[in-house]
Amino acid sequence: MPLDLKTYIRDVPDFPKPGILFRDITPLLRDPDALRDTIEQLAAKCEEWSIDAIAGIESRGFVFATALAVRMGLGLIPVRKPGKLPHQTFQQKYELEYGTDAVEVHQDATRDGESVLMVDDLLATGGTMGAACQVIEKCGGRVVGCLFVIELGALGGRERLPDVPTESLIHY
Amino acid sequence: MPLDLKTYIRDVPDFPKPGILFRDITPLLRDPDALRDTIEQLAAKCEEWSIDAIAGIESRGFVFATALAVRMGLGLIPVRKPGKLPHQTFQQKYELEYGTDAVEVHQDATRDGESVLMVDDLLATGGTMGAACQVIEKCGGRVVGCLFVIELGALGGRERLPDVPTESLIHY
Repeated sequence: MPLDLKTYIRDVPDFPKPGILFRDITPLLRDPDALRDTIEQLAAKCEEWSIDAIAGIESRGFVFATALAVRMGLGLIPVRKPGKLPHQTFQQKYELEYGTDAVEVHQDATRDGESVLMVDDLLATGGTMGAACQVIEKCGGRVVGCLFVIELGALGGRERLPDVPTESLIHY
Repeated sequence: MPLDLKTYIRDVPDFPKPGILFRDITPLLRDPDALRDTIEQLAAKCEEWSIDAIAGIESRGFVFATALAVRMGLGLIPVRKPGKLPHQTFQQKYELEYGTDAVEVHQDATRDGESVLMVDDLLATGGTMGAACQVIEKCGGRVVGCLFVIELGALGGRERLPDVPTESLIHY
């Protein structure tokens, strides 16, 4: 029987700024059974997609995406913050509350028509994941779904994502 | 038979600045067999230690450390850049060529006497890993070894690490 993963999430008030309740995944990572079960629950969600590769978003997305890729027998595409990837990249900007940020991916990270599953730890406003989907599509990849460990439903992040199946393990 | 992982590393000249030859792991991550084999080769190295937990260093260290933790049935301790971890942390500064940087870990990340294996993608000068070992020891953890995918031997990074077994899969 799957574990109740929410019991491994620690609520930290006022981080990163006053009024924000931060959902801390480090107790989940630290517990061998919870970590393994998280990867198994993510793998079970993957059954609804036909996937050629998994894209993980820097940096907490790397944690889950790589373990899931190994579990599924797939390769990993790292989606990184600007200036980190050494070869030719595509970049996609997105808006923050104040200012803009961006994500990058190697231009040869995926080929035309490959089916890519996008993985991150947390769906909040959806800004980062929305941009990550766009930059994968610039490479010719086809985004088939978005998969998160935690979803903060009240922030409406799903509305900023492409019209593909979106799944999360833990809902707030 | 294990794959020759070096054939999956791409050399990118003049990144992040002129004169530096960057060892790009993204082709290794992208190839399902190479990724799986990397984790298996890391797991084989683990046989020489008795390990209670694996510490992975942000952010490329997260990639390998988490998959290895799942493979080994262990939990993960994320060692992060300053300001990213939400709960009470210990911090350790280290020197860069120009200036200083630091790493942080949650104070409750490990308990007295637990054996922690440190994992990162690359051993260069050893500054980051040396600081990561110190901050784990501040929590009471006992660093039993350091494990890397790539080691740049000419930079002498081993000399900045604690006197524990240090292993790498790919040597330059």
